[in-house]
This record gives sequence, C-alpha cells and structure tokens, in this order.
Amino acid sequence: MPTYTAPVKDQLFVLHDVLKISEQDVPGYDELDAETTEAILGEAAKLAENVMAPLNAVGDQQGCRLENGIVRTPEGFKAAFDEVRAGGWTALDCDPEYGGQGLPYVVATAVGEQFSAANMAFNMYQGLTHGAYSAIHAHGTDAQKATYLPKMVTCEWTGTMNLTEPHCGTDLGLMRTKAVPQGDGTYKVTGQKIFISAGDHDLSENVIHLVLAKIPGGPEGIKGVSLFIVPKFIVNDDGTVGDRNPVSVGKIEEKMGIHGNSTCVMNYDEATGYLLGEEHKGMRAMFTMMNEARIGVGLQGYAQAEVAYQNALEYAKDRLQGRDVTGAKNPDGPADPLIVHPDIRRNLMDQKSFVEGARAFTLWGAAMIDRAHKCDDKAADGLISLLTPVIKGFLTDKGFDCATNAQQVYGGHGYIEEWGMSQFARDARIAMIYEGANGVQALDLVGRKLGQDGGKHVMAFFDMVKTFAAEAKGQDDAFDAQFLEPLKAASKDLQAAGMYFMQNGMKNPNNALAGSYDFMHLFGHVCLGLMWARMGLAAQQKLASGTGDAAFYEAKLATGRYYMARQLPMTATHLARIQSGADTVMALDAASF
Amino acid sequence: MPTYTAPVKDQLFVLHDVLKISEQDVPGYDELDAETTEAILGEAAKLAENVMAPLNAVGDQQGCRLENGIVRTPEGFKAAFDEVRAGGWTALDCDPEYGGQGLPYVVATAVGEQFSAANMAFNMYQGLTHGAYSAIHAHGTDAQKATYLPKMVTCEWTGTMNLTEPHCGTDLGLMRTKAVPQGDGTYKVTGQKIFISAGDHDLSENVIHLVLAKIPGGPEGIKGVSLFIVPKFIVNDDGTVGDRNPVSVGKIEEKMGIHGNSTCVMNYDEATGYLLGEEHKGMRAMFTMMNEARIGVGLQGYAQAEVAYQNALEYAKDRLQGRDVTGAKNPDGPADPLIVHPDIRRNLMDQKSFVEGARAFTLWGAAMIDRAHKCDDKAADGLISLLTPVIKGFLTDKGFDCATNAQQVYGGHGYIEEWGMSQFARDARIAMIYEGANGVQALDLVGRKLGQDGGKHVMAFFDMVKTFAAEAKGQDDAFDAQFLEPLKAASKDLQAAGMYFMQNGMKNPNNALAGSYDFMHLFGHVCLGLMWARMGLAAQQKLASGTGDAAFYEAKLATGRYYMARQLPMTATHLARIQSGADTVMALDAASF
Repeated sequence: MPTYTAPVKDQLFVLHDVLKISEQDVPGYDELDAETTEAILGEAAKLAENVMAPLNAVGDQQGCRLENGIVRTPEGFKAAFDEVRAGGWTALDCDPEYGGQGLPYVVATAVGEQFSAANMAFNMYQGLTHGAYSAIHAHGTDAQKATYLPKMVTCEWTGTMNLTEPHCGTDLGLMRTKAVPQGDGTYKVTGQKIFISAGDHDLSENVIHLVLAKIPGGPEGIKGVSLFIVPKFIVNDDGTVGDRNPVSVGKIEEKMGIHGNSTCVMNYDEATGYLLGEEHKGMRAMFTMMNEARIGVGLQGYAQAEVAYQNALEYAKDRLQGRDVTGAKNPDGPADPLIVHPDIRRNLMDQKSFVEGARAFTLWGAAMIDRAHKCDDKAADGLISLLTPVIKGFLTDKGFDCATNAQQVYGGHGYIEEWGMSQFARDARIAMIYEGANGVQALDLVGRKLGQDGGKHVMAFFDMVKTFAAEAKGQDDAFDAQFLEPLKAASKDLQAAGMYFMQNGMKNPNNALAGSYDFMHLFGHVCLGLMWARMGLAAQQKLASGTGDAAFYEAKLATGRYYMARQLPMTATHLARIQSGADTVMALDAASF
Repeated sequence: MPTYTAPVKDQLFVLHDVLKISEQDVPGYDELDAETTEAILGEAAKLAENVMAPLNAVGDQQGCRLENGIVRTPEGFKAAFDEVRAGGWTALDCDPEYGGQGLPYVVATAVGEQFSAANMAFNMYQGLTHGAYSAIHAHGTDAQKATYLPKMVTCEWTGTMNLTEPHCGTDLGLMRTKAVPQGDGTYKVTGQKIFISAGDHDLSENVIHLVLAKIPGGPEGIKGVSLFIVPKFIVNDDGTVGDRNPVSVGKIEEKMGIHGNSTCVMNYDEATGYLLGEEHKGMRAMFTMMNEARIGVGLQGYAQAEVAYQNALEYAKDRLQGRDVTGAKNPDGPADPLIVHPDIRRNLMDQKSFVEGARAFTLWGAAMIDRAHKCDDKAADGLISLLTPVIKGFLTDKGFDCATNAQQVYGGHGYIEEWGMSQFARDARIAMIYEGANGVQALDLVGRKLGQDGGKHVMAFFDMVKTFAAEAKGQDDAFDAQFLEPLKAASKDLQAAGMYFMQNGMKNPNNALAGSYDFMHLFGHVCLGLMWARMGLAAQQKLASGTGDAAFYEAKLATGRYYMARQLPMTATHLARIQSGADTVMALDAASF
C-alpha cells in the first residue's frame, strides 16, 4: 500500500530560501517567518499523512454511491472531513470578515499540495468550495456574502461549479440551461449539467451550486450567459437551512479515477436561483473561479507525481533485482536494489526534477497572485494571467507522465491495483481534462494571453529571465555553464517561437494555433528551467554560508543539473515543430483522415 | 460505445505496395497475391468487427471471476472463442504437420493487429497459446510435439508462459520454483508463479503451462533454469485428457486494464512436469517464446492506438464545438466540428502518423522473421533480433501515448468509462510492462543487441537506410526535401548516438546505459521515418501510375510529411540527452534522492 510523506523541507526551501517570502513587500508576508510557515506545514503534514493518505485507496475502491437520491461518500470520508474543518484547514486564506484566517494564498497553496498528494479525490470537496467561495466573495452582494460565505469558509456548506452540459463543454455559448426571472429578484433555473465534481454528497449540510444559465431574451451565445447561486437547500432568512430546492442527482458517473469524488449529473427543475454578479456577465464571474481552479489543477498534476515518485523511490531502494554493471552494490544479498540501474535512475530523476521544479513554479505563481491581489499589482496580475494556462497544461501533462513512469518502476506490480500505483496515474489523468482541457489551455495561451496588453506580459517574462541571469552570472563558472547557459538557450527557443507566431500568425492564424500545444510545453520548460536556476543559486548561497543541511543543498544542485541537461533540451524539438507551421497539420480534408 | 473498422486497405498498401510481398523470394510468399491477402484480411475483419469488438467493453466491465477454483471468463467469450477456433484463425501460420495452415507470419501478424485492436484481452488467450506452441515446436521432442501441438494449433488446449515469481521478475536467476526429477523422466514442479496471463479459464479443455524452474543441484542463478511442460490435466497415452495435475489458481489479480484476460497467481504443488529442451537451458527455450511475444506486444501497442484513434476521429468529426478561426465550416449549424481546430488536428495527426508508421514497421519486421526462418537468412535474423526491443519498447510507449491523446479529444467524456476511451488507455498501459518492461528492452538493445556479432546488424540497418535513400533520391525535389533529408538527419543523430556509446561506454558502461531509453526511442523514430519514406515513395509511384485511389495515396503522402516534419525532430532531443552522459543521472547517492 502506498504511503505519503509531506515534503515540508522542500516546501520551506522554496518559500524561504528561493522566494524569500518573509522579505517580500506583500501585506501578510511579514508574519511568515520560517518558524511560522514550518509550524503550519508541519501540522498540515500530520493531517495529510495520517488522515487523508490512508483513505486514498479506500476512496478508489469504494467510490461514491447514489442511494435513494442521496450520495454516500466512501467510508471514513465524513469523519476526516469533519477533522479538516475542525482544524480550520478550509479557512486558511479566506477573508477574516467571514471567519477566514487571512493567511496568504502562497501558504494555502503549499498546504493544498500536501492535501492533494495525500488524497486528491477527497481534497476536491474542499477545493471546489473554495472556488465557489471566491466567486461569491468577488461578485456577490453584501447580503449574499453574509448568507453564504461564513458557512462555506468552514465547509459546513460546500460548493460546486456547473458549466458543462451534454452537448457543450468548452463552447459554453451553446448552453441550454435557462433561468427565468420571477419578478421578485429570484429565478427559476431549469436544465441539465454534467461532470459536476462534488455535485452532491453526505459531507456537508448544504451544497451551494454556482450554475451558468441563460436568461430568456438575452444576447445570443456566450454573451447571454449569467451565473446563479442555486443552493441544494434554500437558506431561510435567519440563516438556517430550509426547504429542499428541486435540484437532483441524475447519476454518478463511472470514471477512470478520482472515484472518491462524486462526479454528478445534476438536474435543475425550476430550482430557485439568485443572480450572482451582473446579468449576462456570468463568464466574467465564472473566470474568477476558473483561474484559481486552474492553478489548483496544475498543483494536482505535480502533487500526484510527487506521491507516485515517493513510492517508486522506496520500491527502487527495496526491490532487489539484477546487479550494478560497474560492480555489486549489495554483494551479500541475492541482487542489488533497482536504484543502482542507470535507466531506473533516469526515470526517477525525470520525476524528481520535474516535481521539484513544478513546486517552485506553482508557489512562485501563488506568490504572484498574492502580489496581484494584495498590492493591486497589475504587472503581477498580467504575468500570472499569462502563465496560468502553462501551470495548468504543462504541469498536468507532465504530472501524468511522471505518475505513469513511477508506475513503470514497479514492473508488473505497477499494473495491479493492490499496489496503488495505478490509482495515481488514473487520478492524475483527469487533471489534463477538467477546468479546460489542455488543448484549450494552449489556445488560451497563444490565442489570448500572449498578445494581451500589447504583449507586454510576455516581454516582462523575458525581462525577468534576463535580469535573473545577469545578476546570477559570473559568480561561478560551473553554475554559469550548467544552469545559465541552458536557460539562455531555452529562453532563446521560446523567443524564436514567439517570433514565428508574430511573423506567420498574422497571415494565417493556424500557423500559431497549430503550434500552440508545443508552445505551452516549451514555455513550461523555460519556466521550470528558470526555477531550477533560481533554486540552484539559492542552494549554492546556502552552501557558501555554511548553514543548514549541506547534503540537501547538494542534492538540489544535482537535481537541477539533471533538469538542465536532460529535460530542457526538449525546447529545441518544440521549436522545430512550431516552425514547421500549419501546412502539414491542416493538409488533410476531414474526409481523408 | 466505441466501434472498430479493420484498416484492410492500409494493411494491403503496406503488404503489397510497400513491402511488395508477392515479389519477395521467400517460400510461401508466392501464394500471396493481393486478392488472396485481401480475402484473408477481409474475413478476419468480419470477425474482429462483429464478434470481438462488441465484447471488448463487456470484458472490461465483467472481468474474470474465480469460482470454487474455476475461472469464468466474461459473457460471450466462450462462444466467440469457439467461432475463432472453428474458422481456423488460431492455426494461420502454424505448421501443417500439426494441423496448421502454414501461411507466412506476415499475414498472421496483419490478422493479429485486427484482433488485438478489436479486443486485446480476448485475443491474448490465443496469442499466449501461439507462443507456447512455438516453444514446443522449436524445442520439444517428436513425442511432445505430437502430443501437444495439434490441440494447441486449434486452441482446444491453450498455453501459458510462467516466468515471474513474487520476488523476481526481470532477474530470473533469483527463481525459487523447483523441479525434482522422479527418475522416470518426469519432474515434480513446486512453486508459485505470478502475473500468468490466461493462467486459467473456461475457454479450453486443457491448459498447457510452460514453467521455468530450477532442478536442485544445478548451476546457480540464471544458468540453472530449465523449462517444463506442466499441463493442467495430464494427457493420457491415447491423447485424451486425464487426471488433474496439482496446479491451482491462487487468485485473479485486479488490474488497471485487460480485465477480460485472467491474470493468475498459479500455485504448483508437486505438479508433474516434462522437461522441454535441455536441462538448465530453459532460458534459451523461453526466448523463443519471448521474441515472438515481444513483436506481438509491440503490435498491441499500436493496435490500441489505432482503435482509439478511429473513435477519436469520429468524435472530432461529429462533436460541434467552437468555430474555425479562419471562417465557419458549418455555418448553418450551432458550431463547427472539433476537427476544424488546429490543435485537435495536431493531436489526430500525431496518432495517425504514428499508427500507420508503426504498422509498416511491424509488418516489415514480421516479413524479416519469415525471411529468417524460411530462408535461414542470418542477416535478416540479426536485423530483427536487433530491432525486436525497438518494436516492443517504442511502439508500446507511443501506443499508450496515442491512446491517451485519443481520450483527450473527448474532453470530459474521455474520462467516463461509459464512452470506452479510458479502456483503450488502460489496456494499452500493460504493453509497456509485460514481456520485459520497456526499460529492460532498452537495456537489451544497448547492452546486448547493439554490439552483437561485432555490431554488424546495426551497420546493416544503416546500410539499408543509405541504400534506400540513394535509390529514391533525385526523382522528385519535394520528396527529397520532405522525406529524404529529414530521414538522413535523423539517421545521422542515431549514428552520433551510437558513436557516443562506443567512445564513452568503454570507460564507463553507465554512459551507454543512462542513454539506453532515449536510444530506443531515437531508433524507433528513425525506423518509422524510414517506413514513412518508403510509404511515401510507394504512394508517389502509385499516383504516377494512375492506378488505384488517388485520394488514398495523397493522404499517405500528407501523413508522411507530417511525421517527418513534426515527429522526427524528436531525434535531436534524444541525442542531446544521450550525449549528456551518465554524470547527472548517477550523481545522487540513493540516500540523497
């Protein structure tokens, strides 16, 4: 059975040695000295390791059941959820005005990694609630906020996002769910929504659905979509839970993974709804949830890779099979451990170097969000807006690859459910799909974000790389050669790709769109390359200072060198594909496929 | 629910227009005119499409059950198996002396692709029997052949391979199963074997297990391993089925996929066994099965990709979502079909260009096996021996990637089991693991096959590429630029990688082994590049001749151009990784991971 150990030391390294959050001029960060962060992450770790992780396989095996209209979560989920709530873990970065703890998002993100790695399906109940909380917090009236937020902060009431319908996923303009105004400020919502994560369950007293629907007579397509609060139980004026709203679960989907989360078909049959935000401006409000959710999904990608890697590593150390070709490492045993073999190491180092780079990238992104929100910093906002699709798309693709590769270390045992490695791969698979399939992320990146505000955010990214490289350069020849030169080469590939789009996308947008997926991956590699260079420099500085665990910092440098030498060269292939243009991609008629 | 249409036209193109089998100087090939092949493949297609494919989801959902020691296969499997047997499909390339039809292996391989794509788990019952048949055919005594082969050719009796034990998979020298001679020519076999595909079931009257075991007192390790025939029911002297042998099923494993095949823990408790081949030479006999099985597994990889691609393509044509940015393609509908979007096409073309290239590579390999066996051609034997790990490792890795990418086209529906796309990915996953995990294939390629016979087989491969390019060159400038130049560049990368191993593997073998996985993929890309160049040339010749379906040949050329422009550049990244050597791979102590 797999186990999970929260990587607290690695998280603290990123937060305090690399991002140096305590020194950042962001409100709330001044309270984050290393001891405080460590205390929070240490407590979270206990919950993740001892409460959530043991329920991961249980959730996979039992799944959720629909019994007489009521959804039952797997054994132990309710008690664990109560423990999470009681510890205040659902309220970490929520607004103190509504009972939140007001901690920075960057800390909540580090905690979220642990929870997601320990039990992805379980943690989604809380994660979706947080998304709904954010949308109401940003777009709700004072009355709505007062009614819903305090209960959602504690997860006494949970939340959902209702976008997809059977015939429309990405293209929400095709939506059929309608909301008819009743003249008293309420609406009657009618329609069917599918793929609703945590759509119903027995963990909370009420479920607050955020539902996209069209008000009859409004604009056609996506411009006529509004967002509604549709509670499972109507909330009485005194804040207590009242009548059942006509919202029902059509069925629970049988999925490839995340069986512990109830993915529901939701039927709305003249259910009472309350407009959230403005009429016909539902997409704007929904995007508040989606952008946050996309970072959270990117995190799920590398979190599954992390837990899968941890178990693959232990297996590689324990399992005796074959001999080191350069001489036996375990001469008294019947064979050497798997980890002596170069190709097993290649596989493990691929995973390790990805996960640690992804963690730094995501926490850096979370810090950008704090800066954007708490300092109203437009540049930070633009940068994280640009990179959100990269975090979502690249980290989930690679996270799934890593989980699959971790499974491979187990040989035949990796394919047997009992060993638990299949679950990591199956669970990780959804992260490439939901919250906008990764192809849609690539489209968002190239079709929308790249040119936003005259392209100034991508220029800011290149400036950031250049500034870092200029500051870091010349202190150590080996560092320059092993970290800065590869980073420079990769960044040059990214610039060349952007240039190709500029020169060829004008005359034919397909020249840009046909390269969008490669561009998203190219960008991801440059971001992880930058993060590794920053981590390498921080590790070197710690080593020079003679403080801390030298072996830990040496390992960071070694892992960074691996990434730069073995992963970053991928940018050249992505560039070659991009520069081959749209011709070969678009050549065939649909009928000739 | 997914469907399957056998790609008979594509198979005929490879067999007759590209490989030109009717013109080859190989015994039996002269009977293979295009009409004969088409008739065989057309009949196979009916069975694959109408009998096997409809049972694919049934097998996944029901799985196999162990009831009072008896394994029950899913509903409909027995009737379908009887139909396959009755049609003679299990006997295609078997020896006529034992009831086989004596057709070339290349034809059986094309049929095998269809069957495997239609229902991988189902087709394994027959596939493993064929492997056991081959081992007995090659190494059995006349009496053993007479006893077992006629019944195995018809699959009245099925076969298995028993290698793995709980503590040893790849490193079979650690084996504990023992075979004690009884003085009468028989042995008592005792031990536990795991991961035994088709280990027991209700499809056949008897199961002939081939079991690796050690004869006490023999050499240590792998040199003391012998192979035994251990039938489920002892065969009486008159050929009828007699007493039950003490062989039992410990349990059926719960797996990620191929649920329709019974993967068993087999317990041998002083079961009567008969030596197959020589004492302590069991590995040699087992390799007869394994090499054949590895080609068959590579085939499974691309076959799952093919069926997944077919369904993704249909979905992309049907599903209306979004608009073509260059102008609506379905202006009267609510949206355009997915296939108008460049990134959907990129994904589909990745799949299509891989599958068609893989088919050509595998059928070419099967033809090499025919040549090796039927003409006793040592060069052909050396070449296919070199490329067997590439067929197995590269085609299954890429096949799984493609099945995953096909799933992605469906968006959220791809994750829901009801739609069937998850099964293709889950089933395809095993092919990367069994018959030697792909890391072991890479080790076999670089550690063993590359230097075999003084490296002459890899030199022969390069000669083959060079000869083809020289013959093809100069007929058409566009063809030279689009096909031959990229092939030459990729082949140069492969040579450079080989050169790197030669120069650096001597002083430190880890420099070669750390690059083995990348080398396997690099080699795979060059092979598919060669196949696409050959297919492109054949298509061009057909177009020039004015015969046949011009649109079909144009599509071949377009798909080939895609592969050369978009997939083949990957060789540069593989080379860069290889040339980075072992240092970054081996730097960390096991404790520092």
